Amino acid sequence: MILVNQGAQEAKVRDVLDAANSLGVPIKRVDGKELDALAHGSTHGGVLAICSAKPRTTPEQLMELLNKCAQPPLLLLIEGIEDARNLGFTLRSAEALGAAAVLIKKHLWDFDPIELARPASGAFERLPLVQLEDPGLLHSLRRRGMRLLGCVAGVKRNIYQAELTEAVILAIGGEKRGLSAAVRALCDGLVTIPTVASAASLPLSHAAAVVLAEARRQRLAQPPTVESDVEK
Amino acid sequence: MILVNQGAQEAKVRDVLDAANSLGVPIKRVDGKELDALAHGSTHGGVLAICSAKPRTTPEQLMELLNKCAQPPLLLLIEGIEDARNLGFTLRSAEALGAAAVLIKKHLWDFDPIELARPASGAFERLPLVQLEDPGLLHSLRRRGMRLLGCVAGVKRNIYQAELTEAVILAIGGEKRGLSAAVRALCDGLVTIPTVASAASLPLSHAAAVVLAEARRQRLAQPPTVESDVEK
Repeated sequence: MILVNQGAQEAKVRDVLDAANSLGVPIKRVDGKELDALAHGSTHGGVLAICSAKPRTTPEQLMELLNKCAQPPLLLLIEGIEDARNLGFTLRSAEALGAAAVLIKKHLWDFDPIELARPASGAFERLPLVQLEDPGLLHSLRRRGMRLLGCVAGVKRNIYQAELTEAVILAIGGEKRGLSAAVRALCDGLVTIPTVASAASLPLSHAAAVVLAEARRQRLAQPPTVESDVEK
Repeated sequence: MILVNQGAQEAKVRDVLDAANSLGVPIKRVDGKELDALAHGSTHGGVLAICSAKPRTTPEQLMELLNKCAQPPLLLLIEGIEDARNLGFTLRSAEALGAAAVLIKKHLWDFDPIELARPASGAFERLPLVQLEDPGLLHSLRRRGMRLLGCVAGVKRNIYQAELTEAVILAIGGEKRGLSAAVRALCDGLVTIPTVASAASLPLSHAAAVVLAEARRQRLAQPPTVESDVEK
């Protein structure tokens, strides 16, 4: 719901009201004092939006979403991220680099949504986030034809040797413990980002950006096809 | 200098003392109370190191370093980074992805070195950081045969179409203002990271990781040559 100061100049709030109308969001005219009492800070400019928490995407909604993807879907699975800001930056990268959704472990929902939303720059609100409660969802995705690729240190095959143009879930673990044994056990393959041996590992959110960018590079390099079967 | 609690068990501090000896770092035995007074927090474990601030790499030292590079050097130039943590993560990525040094604007030295060093995970101490006070250094680097490539939004050529195997400085601007006019004016070319049009831009530190990773991919894909002239 949008609350608008009843004293607000029509011209100044016209764009907001038009947007709210076209999206079917209810509008309520209220007293300026009511806005002051509801707002954090005093720079509300005469307009407030009352929002509910971002709903999680259910596994069923994810399956529907994947059916609608124009190209083979690209998903990101992250484990062990430790702070809201890094998660926010990761979501922003994931959206910019073409991930259709992000799968995260249950406890990640405990993060402060404001700390998370700010660095995400809109990606937190737009990108479907799916809670990974048990391996059931990963089994379902693999049955649907998606390959689960784990990004870990020290394996021979690197991300540039992996085929990332098909439907794939890229799984990245935390900086301390890497991918969990439970997720590793389900992986169809393991790949590594080739980094300088004497350096520290890549930060988790940067590793995610690098591997998603590589998937996007491979996809952009392909000739566009409506039905991939035609090419085979 | 290393300060060691005079009551410390020899076996527990042996590794530290050996390392200090081999690096020529002076060792001083002191009273436990002196350590307590000098340490932040109480978990010093009987050993303290007294460090001076990280010295900046001078333009002359950078030139010497470039002369010693086994392969065509890869440098990162960043502008407009706004917090110490993001800079720390960027340095860590830059080292892991093979940058020989990072060029930053003067005001970046104002960051809290502890806030910067922690996410950098050692890269802040290891990676040469050069202060870019005026365009003189960029002119010198270009005269030395390095190409300056600016990463910006909305140009036609993308990073995958650019030749990144030769000596190159990758310049990346801040999220708000992009690359400064002063740096753009010196660029030999502009390239873009192809992202999803409806998404927000990549965070600065992630953009740096993606473009450095692409340079590294191109370099790893090349056949190893001792003298590149042989191949031409």
